[in-house]
Amino acid sequence: MSDVRAQLLAAEIERYHEAALRMADAARDVIQSLRRTGVSVTRKPDNSLVTNTDFAVEQRLRELIAADYPTHGIVGEEYPPANADSPFQWILDPIDGTEEFARGIPTYGSIIALHFRNQPLVGVIDHGALSLRVHGAFGLGAWRGKRRIALADAPHAALNGGDSIVICARHNFTRHSNDDRHFDRITRSYPNHRIFRSCYGHTLAITGNVDAMVEYGNRVWDLAASRVLTEEAGGKYVTVQEIDVPGIGLICGAVFGKQATVDKIIELLAA
Amino acid sequence: MSDVRAQLLAAEIERYHEAALRMADAARDVIQSLRRTGVSVTRKPDNSLVTNTDFAVEQRLRELIAADYPTHGIVGEEYPPANADSPFQWILDPIDGTEEFARGIPTYGSIIALHFRNQPLVGVIDHGALSLRVHGAFGLGAWRGKRRIALADAPHAALNGGDSIVICARHNFTRHSNDDRHFDRITRSYPNHRIFRSCYGHTLAITGNVDAMVEYGNRVWDLAASRVLTEEAGGKYVTVQEIDVPGIGLICGAVFGKQATVDKIIELLAA
Repeated sequence: MSDVRAQLLAAEIERYHEAALRMADAARDVIQSLRRTGVSVTRKPDNSLVTNTDFAVEQRLRELIAADYPTHGIVGEEYPPANADSPFQWILDPIDGTEEFARGIPTYGSIIALHFRNQPLVGVIDHGALSLRVHGAFGLGAWRGKRRIALADAPHAALNGGDSIVICARHNFTRHSNDDRHFDRITRSYPNHRIFRSCYGHTLAITGNVDAMVEYGNRVWDLAASRVLTEEAGGKYVTVQEIDVPGIGLICGAVFGKQATVDKIIELLAA
Repeated sequence: MSDVRAQLLAAEIERYHEAALRMADAARDVIQSLRRTGVSVTRKPDNSLVTNTDFAVEQRLRELIAADYPTHGIVGEEYPPANADSPFQWILDPIDGTEEFARGIPTYGSIIALHFRNQPLVGVIDHGALSLRVHGAFGLGAWRGKRRIALADAPHAALNGGDSIVICARHNFTRHSNDDRHFDRITRSYPNHRIFRSCYGHTLAITGNVDAMVEYGNRVWDLAASRVLTEEAGGKYVTVQEIDVPGIGLICGAVFGKQATVDKIIELLAA
């Protein structure tokens, strides 16, 4: 099977990658300036949290995309889609981990991804409060800041035996599906797990600081950057959930990180 | 019942508090300098991780205590107890969250506490990598940096319904006891929990950034600072586990944070 992404020139992909990095800089600036002037919290119709900062960041990113790539599509957490027919789709989660952001816990992040014909081309996860960014693009590698990531060579993260994994909360396994048993199974097999909300766990799995991340019950923007980043880092990414929930949309899940750990978890979930 | 701690003068307690803050500064310095020159990881006989930094921090803290308070007792994670008969006992966890520290995850911390006749007098939890410190002393309040903490006035941390809690991993409920059912019960009742290792979760509960922390399977130094900090912050601290495990020693657990949330969790554990 040929990869549609290989139709594009590396130089074009690199330009998109650079654009995504500028967008991440802009997201950081907006977040920083609103943290100074005041973050206000409200609820969305689905009862989830949103802040003025989520809206302001997405708005800024949309302006940047519209200026540089007016024909490209945009799918973002806070505003309606644009140019849905374009083969290029920017997928944005302006603040992933809004609960953390609103409560002053620094593990939130901005997710910026560009997909081409439904395949992830460029990905950035930016944690401004931790001065941490992972980014990469198809064929161009995955990077932590300026250091290229090589997951295959990374030492085992759990130095005292077993694998070190981050999982999502039980909530994610039950909110849109009945996957409670997976939470039980995983926490029994990997009892020394951690639960960092969403994208900080992704970053840790992509950089190899932990061995794998298990994610269920996500929206598309939550996972939009993680596959290309994991694969470009030399890791493995397996989709374990993809369901269309009426009134909500696509709900997805994935296991990703170092290959050996991912394989073991996939086996466990299938058992 | 009169509190033995009330026998001490406030000025004396304040001196101990200041000494503990100087010790936290020293711990930060040692950690920072070893992160530059190189952290080496080994295993302890019980298979848990330890680094050269754990030893170096505890050694430095012991030197400071011996210089200022040569008759005081010291209980630390890495070295044998000293002056076990003294009514004053410094209890030290030089790096709580050694796994995180060794893997470059910034949520580890140093715990420094002074107990007087088995009651906690002074507590500090210091997260150098997050520029975050909580500290306090009996009768003198609990502080986040220079800001006094008032948990009773803190807004509900979970802005979108329910309580926001941090718990320990399943491991902690099963390692030294058979409290697996509590993990299941808590994760079912609070499905949107987080799991940050040990003292970062404590800090979030003490500052009110989350509503409560549930901790099982701890050693004395893990919890040594948390009761006085929680109570001085205006929160509630309930011991839920205290067992003597042969060959290991005292294993303890506690629920602490905002009173209403703590009461609900205690009820759940008793159900």
